[in-house]
Amino acid sequence: MMSGLLITIEGPEGAGKTSIMQSMVPLLRARAKTSVITTREPGGIPIAEEIREVILSSKNEGMDNKTEALLFIASRREHLVKKVLPALKDDKVVIIDRFIDSSLAYQGVGRDLGIRAIESLNEFATDGIKPQLTLYLDVEVEEGLSRIEQNRVDEVNRIDLTELSFHKKVREGYLEIAHNNPERVAIIDASQTFATVVREGLNVIIQRFPEWFSEIKY
Amino acid sequence: MMSGLLITIEGPEGAGKTSIMQSMVPLLRARAKTSVITTREPGGIPIAEEIREVILSSKNEGMDNKTEALLFIASRREHLVKKVLPALKDDKVVIIDRFIDSSLAYQGVGRDLGIRAIESLNEFATDGIKPQLTLYLDVEVEEGLSRIEQNRVDEVNRIDLTELSFHKKVREGYLEIAHNNPERVAIIDASQTFATVVREGLNVIIQRFPEWFSEIKY
Repeated sequence: MMSGLLITIEGPEGAGKTSIMQSMVPLLRARAKTSVITTREPGGIPIAEEIREVILSSKNEGMDNKTEALLFIASRREHLVKKVLPALKDDKVVIIDRFIDSSLAYQGVGRDLGIRAIESLNEFATDGIKPQLTLYLDVEVEEGLSRIEQNRVDEVNRIDLTELSFHKKVREGYLEIAHNNPERVAIIDASQTFATVVREGLNVIIQRFPEWFSEIKY
Repeated sequence: MMSGLLITIEGPEGAGKTSIMQSMVPLLRARAKTSVITTREPGGIPIAEEIREVILSSKNEGMDNKTEALLFIASRREHLVKKVLPALKDDKVVIIDRFIDSSLAYQGVGRDLGIRAIESLNEFATDGIKPQLTLYLDVEVEEGLSRIEQNRVDEVNRIDLTELSFHKKVREGYLEIAHNNPERVAIIDASQTFATVVREGLNVIIQRFPEWFSEIKY
């Protein structure tokens, strides 16, 4: 069923997922033996976009945590079926910015809904499909949040304690997932220089999948 | 946690749930020792309404069946938390027009997603809360659909075979649920006269819960 290669990038706030991915992808494409596409939920899929709007528009109405978890997973399902699976079927490499592990870390651990419960919902939504590799960009919560703060000076400049404790739980969730899935999850220390993080990410991908990428030369 | 009484009314298309409920409720209220409220998802809960709009607006875009199931369940969660649980906490009688069994019959059986899988999603969404009684209004699919046709002469007047086969599966799903939960689900033959169905429904409720309703007299 799944003939392409599915890679996900995960990490807490401020780990630099998106910019790391943007730098890695051209380098990966230069070495790839097939097309490399990148995406993130809701990924331009109309139904998934509408679901995401419900989540965002209801931020101040106090949406129940379980409702939120179900909506994220519904949006994931639609994005997977309409965008990711067709690309995998075409033997492409698909790199997703946040996937199942975000639900497990944010909703399962951060919101206390339980990793097992959220895992079971995700299995339903993804038909049990798992990424062959997950790059987990790890960063201390304080450092990650302070990076974000520097990028949004106009916004609230104070991280309250509730937020801090939530993000600490999220990171603990990620570390638990990584330790329980060592064959799938590669932990990358995202407190290193940007160039080092990009190089480590590339190395992991290229060494793990020689059938998909030519060897990297420095 | 749940101190009120939760009753649900279920049935395939054209079983007459809504009108039976409308006739039963004033009679129940006259005998009830506490308030009786009726509701149906999304029940005026803003977030649940928005979710329902996504389901309806996407009807022609080919929403994936699992996405649809997750959205119905997300809407149920919000309606339950914001409207049903507060009423139950206030010791009220809450009667819901369609609840978990609709997911099991329509998505689990009708859409072939599996009763167990849909049941497990619902358990997550409802924290395992089950109605103390479900009135299942049973009607042959052809009869139910022809009743609806008579009420919507302006609309499509032809029931195609796919639709017929879907609704037959839904009814089989309901019958399976009823047979597996005889203590919870009361089957009422909805092909009887309207007055008979109303009386049978009332009798079941009042005889089952003497602590909530005074005895009925004819």
